[in-house]
Amino acid sequence: MRAFRMREWLTDPVLTEVDTPEPGPGQVLVRIGGAGVCHSDLHIIREFQPGQMPWELPFTLGHENAGWVEAIGSGVTGLEPGMPVAVYGPWGCGACERCLQGVETYCERPGEAPVAFGGGGLGLDGGMADYLLVPHARHVVPLPDGLDPVTAAPLTDAGLTPYHAVRRSWPKLTPTATAVIIGIGGLGHLAVQIVKATTAARVIAIDTRAEALELARRLGADLTATPGEGVAALVRDETKGLGADVVIDCVGSDGTLALAVSVGRVLGDLTIVGLGGGTLPVTFFGVPFEMSVQTTYWGSRPELREVLELAARGLLHTEVTRFPLDDVAEAYRRLEEGSLTGRAVVTP
Amino acid sequence: MRAFRMREWLTDPVLTEVDTPEPGPGQVLVRIGGAGVCHSDLHIIREFQPGQMPWELPFTLGHENAGWVEAIGSGVTGLEPGMPVAVYGPWGCGACERCLQGVETYCERPGEAPVAFGGGGLGLDGGMADYLLVPHARHVVPLPDGLDPVTAAPLTDAGLTPYHAVRRSWPKLTPTATAVIIGIGGLGHLAVQIVKATTAARVIAIDTRAEALELARRLGADLTATPGEGVAALVRDETKGLGADVVIDCVGSDGTLALAVSVGRVLGDLTIVGLGGGTLPVTFFGVPFEMSVQTTYWGSRPELREVLELAARGLLHTEVTRFPLDDVAEAYRRLEEGSLTGRAVVTP
Amino acid sequence: MRAFRMREWLTDPVLTEVDTPEPGPGQVLVRIGGAGVCHSDLHIIREFQPGQMPWELPFTLGHENAGWVEAIGSGVTGLEPGMPVAVYGPWGCGACERCLQGVETYCERPGEAPVAFGGGGLGLDGGMADYLLVPHARHVVPLPDGLDPVTAAPLTDAGLTPYHAVRRSWPKLTPTATAVIIGIGGLGHLAVQIVKATTAARVIAIDTRAEALELARRLGADLTATPGEGVAALVRDETKGLGADVVIDCVGSDGTLALAVSVGRVLGDLTIVGLGGGTLPVTFFGVPFEMSVQTTYWGSRPELREVLELAARGLLHTEVTRFPLDDVAEAYRRLEEGSLTGRAVVTP
Amino acid sequence: MRAFRMREWLTDPVLTEVDTPEPGPGQVLVRIGGAGVCHSDLHIIREFQPGQMPWELPFTLGHENAGWVEAIGSGVTGLEPGMPVAVYGPWGCGACERCLQGVETYCERPGEAPVAFGGGGLGLDGGMADYLLVPHARHVVPLPDGLDPVTAAPLTDAGLTPYHAVRRSWPKLTPTATAVIIGIGGLGHLAVQIVKATTAARVIAIDTRAEALELARRLGADLTATPGEGVAALVRDETKGLGADVVIDCVGSDGTLALAVSVGRVLGDLTIVGLGGGTLPVTFFGVPFEMSVQTTYWGSRPELREVLELAARGLLHTEVTRFPLDDVAEAYRRLEEGSLTGRAVVTP
Repeated sequence: MRAFRMREWLTDPVLTEVDTPEPGPGQVLVRIGGAGVCHSDLHIIREFQPGQMPWELPFTLGHENAGWVEAIGSGVTGLEPGMPVAVYGPWGCGACERCLQGVETYCERPGEAPVAFGGGGLGLDGGMADYLLVPHARHVVPLPDGLDPVTAAPLTDAGLTPYHAVRRSWPKLTPTATAVIIGIGGLGHLAVQIVKATTAARVIAIDTRAEALELARRLGADLTATPGEGVAALVRDETKGLGADVVIDCVGSDGTLALAVSVGRVLGDLTIVGLGGGTLPVTFFGVPFEMSVQTTYWGSRPELREVLELAARGLLHTEVTRFPLDDVAEAYRRLEEGSLTGRAVVTP
Repeated sequence: MRAFRMREWLTDPVLTEVDTPEPGPGQVLVRIGGAGVCHSDLHIIREFQPGQMPWELPFTLGHENAGWVEAIGSGVTGLEPGMPVAVYGPWGCGACERCLQGVETYCERPGEAPVAFGGGGLGLDGGMADYLLVPHARHVVPLPDGLDPVTAAPLTDAGLTPYHAVRRSWPKLTPTATAVIIGIGGLGHLAVQIVKATTAARVIAIDTRAEALELARRLGADLTATPGEGVAALVRDETKGLGADVVIDCVGSDGTLALAVSVGRVLGDLTIVGLGGGTLPVTFFGVPFEMSVQTTYWGSRPELREVLELAARGLLHTEVTRFPLDDVAEAYRRLEEGSLTGRAVVTP
Repeated sequence: MRAFRMREWLTDPVLTEVDTPEPGPGQVLVRIGGAGVCHSDLHIIREFQPGQMPWELPFTLGHENAGWVEAIGSGVTGLEPGMPVAVYGPWGCGACERCLQGVETYCERPGEAPVAFGGGGLGLDGGMADYLLVPHARHVVPLPDGLDPVTAAPLTDAGLTPYHAVRRSWPKLTPTATAVIIGIGGLGHLAVQIVKATTAARVIAIDTRAEALELARRLGADLTATPGEGVAALVRDETKGLGADVVIDCVGSDGTLALAVSVGRVLGDLTIVGLGGGTLPVTFFGVPFEMSVQTTYWGSRPELREVLELAARGLLHTEVTRFPLDDVAEAYRRLEEGSLTGRAVVTP
Repeated sequence: MRAFRMREWLTDPVLTEVDTPEPGPGQVLVRIGGAGVCHSDLHIIREFQPGQMPWELPFTLGHENAGWVEAIGSGVTGLEPGMPVAVYGPWGCGACERCLQGVETYCERPGEAPVAFGGGGLGLDGGMADYLLVPHARHVVPLPDGLDPVTAAPLTDAGLTPYHAVRRSWPKLTPTATAVIIGIGGLGHLAVQIVKATTAARVIAIDTRAEALELARRLGADLTATPGEGVAALVRDETKGLGADVVIDCVGSDGTLALAVSVGRVLGDLTIVGLGGGTLPVTFFGVPFEMSVQTTYWGSRPELREVLELAARGLLHTEVTRFPLDDVAEAYRRLEEGSLTGRAVVTP
């Protein structure tokens, strides 16, 4: 079968021919219907140094995967060939306290996972290929009716990540609350929709680009703004001087983190999902009292079911540009030059 | 001023002339803009026996009130004449653990409240009058922009009651969850909207009347059904055999309670808000494991702010039929004969 | 090996010789160190009718098990021969939403579990034997340092059940709260300790037997009482008229359920863990407002780790009477006649 | 009456004679039984610049107060002369969303409070005097039986602050969890006791001083350590490599904040209560994933009731050194030179 593989660090991956894997006991072979092209792959390709991660080369890229069950190994129940499925991406040890509750993204025994701090497409063979071998059936989640693999693929990461970030703040997202979403790109435009679909909080979307704000409004944002001097005053004004109950920073630069603090509320949440490399200096009087600051990374398996359900019911829209597998390099090139509309999904 | 007053038990109230009250220290006089005509008033008028409640006669009816601040007593801050306001109805002692957190509906020192187990229109003078004296400013909640007193009045009870019932179950109302609302009348048609506005759960509405189900669908119910033999199977079918995560019974008869149990899920919630007088026999194997069964009564002051905000933002619609104060008896007559559309609101 | 087996319904089990099982892929063979003798076994032996449960005969009794890993099947990681372990008893499908979070006690696809509504000793071979075959490694929980299998065995059920019941009420068990535990037997005497160890709430223990109340006081109960006319007044008196925030009924008869309601508080919890066969008639005005009534059944895998940790740290004591496996019938006889002190544990 | 008053900024307060206040409507006059001498008073005396806070001089110091009701103003119910009481210190507007739920420490309309960002002893007359005028009866909390005002006084701040910090982390403080308390001084030695009394988590106490660690062990800490190179390894070792679920930093310097991060766990809490002026640079990969970082400031009125109850039941011990009011300056001198044992309490 074809597979788009990292063979050396700091070197472009190539589409090549490899053996089609066969599922062992408890494993599942998935025929790929869609594999999302994600920004973090560019970090892997362009920036990861040899030895930086405990990963062996070569491996196939692609950590946002959906398709159809092709074959199941012995002992697998509840799945049958032909079923449309999504693949839960973070593959943990399966036995630690976190994994046993489906929070494999925070596996606490990474040394006993199939690969440490990774999964398919992240140190192990991923979905930029005709088939994906999933090492345990628990990672294979049936798609709800009405959701196709091409739409589902990017939801397993670009959807799941903001979903987790929003969901953990639900108790604060009451009808009198305001959420500020910073950065209306791949994660942020889904965060806007997730807040609107799952709560009655108001949403203020912030981005530098006019077309991103236009998109935010179309997806339900109650108000939009560009970063800058007036934005803290605007948010205070819109919240009767109180600030935003929840701020989700999908950029994560020095500037957006400072912005996030300036618009936040006492007892609120500031959740950092963007990998912008910024630093937020937390001091006792420098952030609102008891505003919780935390990062979040990806999400849990039960949350993946929920995000797929949202999409199946029409409450979560992703714009998708399809690329045949043979054009996978072109998809990454377009992502790198910034000329894509929505998410690129490779469709073998 | 005019006031519609209970003067003897088991006797029709009458519209009569009384002195306009003046607010003492900490009190607020509200000019009534709307006073909701509620079914429970019929119980008070027709069924309450002398001595049944620790309430003195006469008193003015009307426990769903909104209007404008007319005058404030000394020491009141944050309110000014002319401000549109709603009145939080359950008036507790203000000093017990529950009251100090705004949950006056469950005041734990009723003997020290203005009236035990009541409030304005419930043992004390209520809002079926030109003016209402509110004994403490904390019960007076400013209306959010865009909400008028006629619309707001019924929300203080018919809106707040289902809002509280739904809100306490939010953690179970995930996008993969299903809520069943039984009885699509005054409370139930609001419960449907509240679930849809504040969560992404699916809603199944159950009622015997075709027009009630039609209303439920218009307000966002995903599915409707009539009670009867097939309904438990239908709900199981729609929930992959699991049952409904949350059931809210706005009727509360023997029959609806049995129905509620038959459609419920292990670890779910069954919340009884309807005063239908039914009995639910709970046995170890007769209800789904760890399904929580509870009544709820009215709601808290912070919740009232939230329900008003929902309505101001267009997420909660009540149909209202207006009656001038001089026609208040006619409004109750129409309620009693069942010929009203939506909620009757008396508008002095 | 020896095994104490149900061979016919309504017939005494017998100690007999069977083949020692071998662990298949993903399975674990446990050498039994202790197997708890539980009251529910008496129900199985004396009362279960043919066809009442979807279980095939014969099977070995014993659903409270601990011991040492004897052998592991292929693919099992994190366990090694010789490790002291407890066995999580409810064996679910392992793939439904509940099982994937470790709540196998409420498995939602019982038809795909090793046995429906059961586990080892409940429809499948249990631990009243020299060895126990555990069908999946996830059920095998390493013992924390300082805890031996004989002590651990009864904790997997008699400890886990009240632990789950108490833990779900933690948010209500503040330092100003009161918990009432009804029935200070096998579950109740552990419930008293669990409340005291994990919260700062006060505990009132209720039982008809003086020696049970003496035990409760020794284990930390702040107050004890016998059921009867004065008990509701006593609890009200001790709680400033408010009632108990949490009531855990370890008996579950008509009488104790009525008692539980009479001592409960508005917004409290009434949790039924005892299988006394009683009925609690819930009506709108017959139970305190918003007191949640629910059953609980056993507990989750993460909770088992916590209960074992409590015991290992000396915060949870069980009195144990040991019986060699050859005397297992005698242990059940003594349980049936009520002449046991503490929990009988069979120690092959 | 005598009162110890700030008359000019950056100048020592003096004990002087002032008129005894009389309670107006809704107010309460408290005869002081104990007034705690708090480190933050030293900041007020030594460091606060004119204009730094919106407070008028002169005012009496003392924000940790308890005593007996001396007189009540009109309209006050539930309190009677002679009752022993504690005074809730943060006096908010009483009408914003936070105040209405008893969280006046985070009042959102400080401009409408008796004094902005303060209370008695913080911009308004406090309790270093024979009597304290409390501007609203809601701030006056009856003492539970068995607790005297001298013991209660420091609990209103030095007890309430760590209580709030621990209580918000209860869900993470399971029997398998570990809490690290950094700085075993006035707040920290109470934090250790609060964790032990209200949860079954293990406690590791960290301080540079041997006697502080000795005190921590006596109060229940399971393990103690001095800061330094080995401490992160020690905590990892004690937590099977996972880190501490909850870290409470009662110092708040650059060094302790860095230490806190180094011992923290993914999904944990890091709560900063110490005013050490440090900065914690939060970056995406520099703190454990989803560890929530927040400050907390003081606590809520319901929490004060709970902390008083803990002390009344003997679960919370404070060492107190008494000073007559005439020696109040000496108490502050001793605090400043660090020669006090436990908390100094002025007892008029």
